[in-house]
Amino acid sequence: MTNSMLLNQARQRLQSVAPLNLRVERVALQAALGRVLAESVVSQIDIPPADNSAMDGFALCYQDLQKTSELPISQRIPAGVKAQPLLAGTAARIFTGANIPAGADTVIIQENCEYDSERVRVMQTSTPMGANIRPKGQDITCHAQVAERGTKLTAVDLSLLASIGVHEVNVYEPLKVAIFSTGNELVEPGTPLQEGQIYNSNRALLMGLCAELDCQVVDCGIVEDTLEATKRALSDAAEQAHLILSSGGVSVGEEDHVRPALESLGSLDMWRVQIKPGKPVAYGKINNTYFLGLPGNPVSSFVVFQLLGVPLMQTLQAQNCKEPEYYSVLAGFDKPATKREEYIRVKLKRNERSELVAECFANSSSGVMSSLSWADGLVRHDIDQAIEKGKAVPFFPLKQAMM
Amino acid sequence: MTNSMLLNQARQRLQSVAPLNLRVERVALQAALGRVLAESVVSQIDIPPADNSAMDGFALCYQDLQKTSELPISQRIPAGVKAQPLLAGTAARIFTGANIPAGADTVIIQENCEYDSERVRVMQTSTPMGANIRPKGQDITCHAQVAERGTKLTAVDLSLLASIGVHEVNVYEPLKVAIFSTGNELVEPGTPLQEGQIYNSNRALLMGLCAELDCQVVDCGIVEDTLEATKRALSDAAEQAHLILSSGGVSVGEEDHVRPALESLGSLDMWRVQIKPGKPVAYGKINNTYFLGLPGNPVSSFVVFQLLGVPLMQTLQAQNCKEPEYYSVLAGFDKPATKREEYIRVKLKRNERSELVAECFANSSSGVMSSLSWADGLVRHDIDQAIEKGKAVPFFPLKQAMM
Repeated sequence: MTNSMLLNQARQRLQSVAPLNLRVERVALQAALGRVLAESVVSQIDIPPADNSAMDGFALCYQDLQKTSELPISQRIPAGVKAQPLLAGTAARIFTGANIPAGADTVIIQENCEYDSERVRVMQTSTPMGANIRPKGQDITCHAQVAERGTKLTAVDLSLLASIGVHEVNVYEPLKVAIFSTGNELVEPGTPLQEGQIYNSNRALLMGLCAELDCQVVDCGIVEDTLEATKRALSDAAEQAHLILSSGGVSVGEEDHVRPALESLGSLDMWRVQIKPGKPVAYGKINNTYFLGLPGNPVSSFVVFQLLGVPLMQTLQAQNCKEPEYYSVLAGFDKPATKREEYIRVKLKRNERSELVAECFANSSSGVMSSLSWADGLVRHDIDQAIEKGKAVPFFPLKQAMM
Repeated sequence: MTNSMLLNQARQRLQSVAPLNLRVERVALQAALGRVLAESVVSQIDIPPADNSAMDGFALCYQDLQKTSELPISQRIPAGVKAQPLLAGTAARIFTGANIPAGADTVIIQENCEYDSERVRVMQTSTPMGANIRPKGQDITCHAQVAERGTKLTAVDLSLLASIGVHEVNVYEPLKVAIFSTGNELVEPGTPLQEGQIYNSNRALLMGLCAELDCQVVDCGIVEDTLEATKRALSDAAEQAHLILSSGGVSVGEEDHVRPALESLGSLDMWRVQIKPGKPVAYGKINNTYFLGLPGNPVSSFVVFQLLGVPLMQTLQAQNCKEPEYYSVLAGFDKPATKREEYIRVKLKRNERSELVAECFANSSSGVMSSLSWADGLVRHDIDQAIEKGKAVPFFPLKQAMM
């Protein structure tokens, strides 16, 4: 059965799938980069663990400074060293990160002092009480949650977990994604092309995209265009993977075997999602393994992967996700209103007022893979709205340049 | 010597460094994800290699349709099969991706036809001549450059290279980055904290960031706070890595040994870069190995890594880079003009008009690592300009949500 639906309806269906029962693995913190956290983590300590000095200088009691500007130095506290209580009427030489001794309430930075190893004279008295102290628990209080179950861990998350002393975490096993391509015309790169053949670029695309998303890839290669071979490949893939991604082979054409193969092994829905580029999308299941059939055309395959494949993969591994952020840029082109949501490949330029302007690729054919490599991102062309040159349009970045 | 400089001056200095003489490795295409291409790649074929059908339907000669709407079917051309020249006055059953037979110039989609295995009748005659054909070379012409030396390869690039038959590429060896932390107060996660100690979070941060950038990490751990130990660690690191990143230990404090160690082993400049957060940055060299000393405070360390570390790393491996893209969002807060370029941690929200608004973190202390994990990105506060609530500000995303 073929269902016509809007993109949001398709996304909602995929996002309402129950998360898989993925195995939980305990791994060293550094090995957890890109993995999805299987537990929420609560801090067992305050950060900082005690009041400490934000600067190199002198720790003292603010009241003492009201009586005199010169104090004897009674101790020296480098970072990492246990501080002794401050003797009344004295100062402690202190360094960044070192604990504030009991009895001190203020740090005067060394640039505002004259000092030798025995005495310090405070030259500038405008420092307020409590200055240059990072209070205990300023960053994280004991028992506060620092990372939520379902977080896909970044370098910043690892650093935050390290700061509370975590050296191992429970993460889900990586999502296993089986990738196969169909089409008798396909040949793997490295082999000479015969007439009528083309090189398989979808395998490299989907394997690369899944690797970028930290999934484990099961490579099923090109499946021979017969019903038997397609059934065999699908049931093998279903045994090995949590999700099967195929490209091509899902249409009403006489040469397409994915659909009857899936219908005989499990279930299949054909979705006619109202997006461009995008062709019918096949969504199904074989036992506990999900199946998503992407278009054979590589640009359509990429867009449908991003719009529907990624939300499904995130849902399957119980990953917390932000809604995608579309930034506002100016259209560098006109385009009449349409009845399908369209994703237009664009490059950003800055105009004379330094505003970002999206210019579209000359050839809008969805067969043109080089346009994706060329593009900085995609402009979303909403249904029933004309795009006018110079007006704001929603832009989604595909390339993240560094700061 | 301490140089005060603007961020752009510091960046330009790092970007004017000569690329390293990195070893070139020939790797399988799929293994090249995230690697930097060491050669420009030119296509040896046209893509598509021949005119082919964009749809399932019937290939015919447009002129014949002017005489009759019904034609006998003289051949069947699935994708991947060699097409015979079209017999005059006949049509060929054709499928998506199959080569157009010589003598045919138009494809009529099957939805517009009535047909059986012997004859086809075209029901709808508005199809123009040449329709539904993807011309030879439409995507890539033979001898066109498809990927430039210095490209950091993404899944899309791999797919493009696969489409022209490339199965191996020359890439540079990964950049080797040695990471070490200094500070007697630091303890690795997993060990109990003694009074005055804190957990080392910079190691996890910098190792994670370098891994995210596909570098090879040389972990030097925490270096003991003595001049001898620091010298030994630095010269060991210089032998193993192309770049040494350290955090902490680079200030004028009596407890800092990185500076004298580097001065005795090689060269060192102290830069007082006019940014916030950010402390003095140490830039130096030991033989052919570069050194970048980041602040000990993890938020400053992250920001300086992004603003100065990344451009240096890209320059060292001859990577082609886009300028970073700052998107325009609305400020959700006021801030007076300052004399240092500031990077403010913010979260994006949509207001009632669906515009993106940046809200800043309540605690602006640069010690607060949780603020980075919380933030969607950074707002750049340019020098001498006040930020006004409701006015546009430049925003740099740190989290790339999927589409």
